[in-house]
Amino acid sequence: MECRDAITGRRSCRNFTDRAVEKEKLTAILEAALMAPSPANKQPWEFLVAADPKYNARLKETSEKTKHKLAARSGWKWLPTFNIDFLIQAPVLIVVLGDPSRSGAEQFLDEPSPGYLEACSAAIQNMLLAAHDQGLATLWFSLYEKSDVREIFAVDDDKDPVAVICVGYSEHPAATPARKTLDEKVKFL
Amino acid sequence: MECRDAITGRRSCRNFTDRAVEKEKLTAILEAALMAPSPANKQPWEFLVAADPKYNARLKETSEKTKHKLAARSGWKWLPTFNIDFLIQAPVLIVVLGDPSRSGAEQFLDEPSPGYLEACSAAIQNMLLAAHDQGLATLWFSLYEKSDVREIFAVDDDKDPVAVICVGYSEHPAATPARKTLDEKVKFL
Repeated sequence: MECRDAITGRRSCRNFTDRAVEKEKLTAILEAALMAPSPANKQPWEFLVAADPKYNARLKETSEKTKHKLAARSGWKWLPTFNIDFLIQAPVLIVVLGDPSRSGAEQFLDEPSPGYLEACSAAIQNMLLAAHDQGLATLWFSLYEKSDVREIFAVDDDKDPVAVICVGYSEHPAATPARKTLDEKVKFL
Repeated sequence: MECRDAITGRRSCRNFTDRAVEKEKLTAILEAALMAPSPANKQPWEFLVAADPKYNARLKETSEKTKHKLAARSGWKWLPTFNIDFLIQAPVLIVVLGDPSRSGAEQFLDEPSPGYLEACSAAIQNMLLAAHDQGLATLWFSLYEKSDVREIFAVDDDKDPVAVICVGYSEHPAATPARKTLDEKVKFL
């Protein structure tokens, strides 16, 4: 697939079929992650790949509780009915772990930025595009308490579970959310 | 260009020629940014495009000072001699502004994550790939004090100048930094 078609066509999928993800496609997705840029080439990431439904079940269970907590805290009306069955459906979950100790020189700024988190996010975007390129669908999921994900996936305390990427095949084409235009988001100085 | 070739072939460029960036290519890069995913589709980003050498000169001047400060603080031997002339050379600078107020439900977690920053990083990765796809070279630059970038580019206090992306044509092929392998970075549960 052309690069620009991958960037334009990628969607967030919230309905996965039970079709398994081919090993070679999963490998290509993970290889894409490793090609992201990172401050001082520190590659501050690791990836846990879970393809056992027991992980899906536990993540769904804890995330339901979290969702209702966030709904109460936010008052957002759509949140209580937000269907997160995709956590059960997705045949593969990729847990993206950031390593805050693998930072670049930005850690020494007066106003430091979490370079490891930015790098992990770039790696995630590479994964989403590589998946779409191969006909797979994904969801970048982060509505969980990190303590829950640490426990479910046995993540060390010094690693940051930045996101869980759901990977599989889409049940039906995902919606295209409205986007702001260039005129609204870009200013030429 | 094929998506996987863009992901694999993208490099961080530190030597730009003085060749101008075509308007239509710049537009394609910015359109790619807008297609990134974001929590609750909040699109928490804005982009300032600077193509006037006065901006390059001021960013280079302040970043040189910052570099030497960081070199002293870190003790990193390579940092004092790290050549940042690319800040002068790049014909276009894109300042990526994050909007922390445009967050998703993750802001209400016990351990909140900066979703706006993750979304901006995904948008940046889209830009780097779209640039490479069109034969352009880029650098994701963040070794600056945010207060300096706020002043140079007249950024409002409520926006986070997440990164400055240098865009242009590469003087010569950029180096391919060593990468860890899948075996080193991926664990199958």
